[in-house]
Amino acid sequence: MKINANFQKMKPSYLFSEIAKRTAEFRAQEPDKDIIRLGIGDVTRPLCPAAVEAGKRAADEMGVAETFRGYAPDGGYPFIREAVSRYYARRGVSVAADEIFVSDGAKCDVGNILDIFAPGITALIPDPVYPVYVDTNIMAGNNIVYISGSADNGFLPVPDENTPPADLIYLCSPNNPTGAVYNAGQLAKWIDYARNCGGVILFDAAYEGFVEGGLPHSIFEIEGARECAIEFCSLSKTAGFTGTRCAYTVVPKELNADGVSLNALWARRTATKFNGVSYIIQRMAEAALSEKGLAQIAENLDYYKENARVISSALDELGVEYTGGKNSPYIWLKCPNGMGSWEFFDLLLKKAGVVGTPGAGFGVNGEGYFRLTAFGDRDRTIEAVKRIEKALREEI
Amino acid sequence: MKINANFQKMKPSYLFSEIAKRTAEFRAQEPDKDIIRLGIGDVTRPLCPAAVEAGKRAADEMGVAETFRGYAPDGGYPFIREAVSRYYARRGVSVAADEIFVSDGAKCDVGNILDIFAPGITALIPDPVYPVYVDTNIMAGNNIVYISGSADNGFLPVPDENTPPADLIYLCSPNNPTGAVYNAGQLAKWIDYARNCGGVILFDAAYEGFVEGGLPHSIFEIEGARECAIEFCSLSKTAGFTGTRCAYTVVPKELNADGVSLNALWARRTATKFNGVSYIIQRMAEAALSEKGLAQIAENLDYYKENARVISSALDELGVEYTGGKNSPYIWLKCPNGMGSWEFFDLLLKKAGVVGTPGAGFGVNGEGYFRLTAFGDRDRTIEAVKRIEKALREEI
Repeated sequence: MKINANFQKMKPSYLFSEIAKRTAEFRAQEPDKDIIRLGIGDVTRPLCPAAVEAGKRAADEMGVAETFRGYAPDGGYPFIREAVSRYYARRGVSVAADEIFVSDGAKCDVGNILDIFAPGITALIPDPVYPVYVDTNIMAGNNIVYISGSADNGFLPVPDENTPPADLIYLCSPNNPTGAVYNAGQLAKWIDYARNCGGVILFDAAYEGFVEGGLPHSIFEIEGARECAIEFCSLSKTAGFTGTRCAYTVVPKELNADGVSLNALWARRTATKFNGVSYIIQRMAEAALSEKGLAQIAENLDYYKENARVISSALDELGVEYTGGKNSPYIWLKCPNGMGSWEFFDLLLKKAGVVGTPGAGFGVNGEGYFRLTAFGDRDRTIEAVKRIEKALREEI
Repeated sequence: MKINANFQKMKPSYLFSEIAKRTAEFRAQEPDKDIIRLGIGDVTRPLCPAAVEAGKRAADEMGVAETFRGYAPDGGYPFIREAVSRYYARRGVSVAADEIFVSDGAKCDVGNILDIFAPGITALIPDPVYPVYVDTNIMAGNNIVYISGSADNGFLPVPDENTPPADLIYLCSPNNPTGAVYNAGQLAKWIDYARNCGGVILFDAAYEGFVEGGLPHSIFEIEGARECAIEFCSLSKTAGFTGTRCAYTVVPKELNADGVSLNALWARRTATKFNGVSYIIQRMAEAALSEKGLAQIAENLDYYKENARVISSALDELGVEYTGGKNSPYIWLKCPNGMGSWEFFDLLLKKAGVVGTPGAGFGVNGEGYFRLTAFGDRDRTIEAVKRIEKALREEI
């Protein structure tokens, strides 16, 4: 019996365990020191009342024979697929209900989508980025080519004549961890590139709820995307569903590879290896995407956006370079004085009692950078920023 | 860009669409005829009150900042892993909480488990059986060897000296579709075989809630299973969770392949491609597995068991051969007079207005057999059985 040998090629994910270890050591040395966490990529605000009420109603329905529901359609009930379709339509994007596949998580779909492609293909992945793209491609035995995000391109790499062809192209916008957001012109370059080389863009829009102004929320806002892109999105960050679990993947009907419809392939994969999202959760997601729900979740998004503004204003005053802070819950800062990511982690922990995330955990180009997040409590965020300001004024 | 060419090797799943088509045609011809469905593999009884109340409480918790929960541990909160561990302990089976991985479905896990094994391995699959085992192995590019279930072995094949070695061995007990249940001695033979050839048994216990008397609910009741078996189980049929979604997979610590812990590999797969089950659903599952919940779900199981008894008693009287009906919600009958599965489908539909499932849909050995299910309404089941009796008395 042979295991999948590719698992041995995946790097152990030390990032969060190393953070926990260093934080615990500090706590043991300084038990009275108050520690504030600005490192988590998880939401903290409660679910909106519309979703809670819908969940309780649906739970009640499941307790009565007349309204009980068994297996749901694999890709989601029509009511939630249509709610997602309307959510896109608000910004003029036309996505049909049967192009939308509702699932329990964008992370699951981003990983599982590889099932429909041949093994050994080439994936083009930005660096730094969300580690799941790299890990799932290693697991599948694919070749990985990196494209560099850096201060020079605002952490928004675009392809040029030197970019090698790729089968899969991963884009995450707003980006985790850098908070950088592609504009329409940059996405158009990616679409041209993908169509020229016959590749498929896997567009991760998990943070689209933070986008403001004229920047794209969806790659389908851009001409030509329906012929070359799959989009992953989720209620996790938009509606605080990280612990509630509902996401959706859009596979346009126009999208083919090898002359085969990828919509049909993903439908077959879904029918074979998935059994649909809980009815209760689908009703909660529908409520979150209703007019009432959207107004309620906007309050939570505003709360996080104000946290991001508090953090980025302080960095502006200190003259620290960063991306994000706007259109994103992430603030990606350049460690001062040429410090390494972990060196800066230790400095912030010891001098300010603040825990963040070393950029080196997101790829080689993350070294020398550091991620702060806007998902915390307002007062704690303000207090953390005060301490960071004090610590950095002593340092720079 | 190449797709996964194995998708083209999967047979289109005509079974349920063909059933729907023939039923619709009949309805068009005889619009006044009442049709009873005894074909569904889905539950119909409502969730137990303990689960509904727990779900509503958890939804309320998610609406308040102090009790809100973000990302859950990938493999489940300790409270649900421990509840499953206690559920096993009730029958003297010792399974540690960190050997239990909680997911949104046994179907998902049965498919996704292939990620941790090398492609191109050999899977031994009984015929007839749940089609997902075959489809997921075709999708992964594995070799499939069938072992025949038939009337001669009571649809419970066991390995002998002619059984070729295999890397993966699929067992489903109680079996879908035949309702047959392995006894301890038969499972011991499978364990000996697996240990001799170095294969891993994938044991699907989704219907264990129907087992009565001394028959095994879990392969871990049998000596040696911890060194060679992974078990998939679910609340779908036990607690009516088909539309609520909660399952668990047990990977013992003793289980290695290539000298690597499969528990560690599955944990890594889970961390990389899954984000945990909804907190609300985990609380509902915990409640269903509490003493109070178990007493409540026993009432639903008894309801279905009585339906199964009603159907099988009638077949006894008619002298029709079948397996299942006891320890299972399925009744797998031999079509009378040497009829084919679809021929019998048409006969029952036209003469009795009853829709069942042709056995041919579950593998070549299913031809000439037919599946009835006990998941319907009691009165409708009694009525269906009366009509079947009348139709068959005219026929045999």
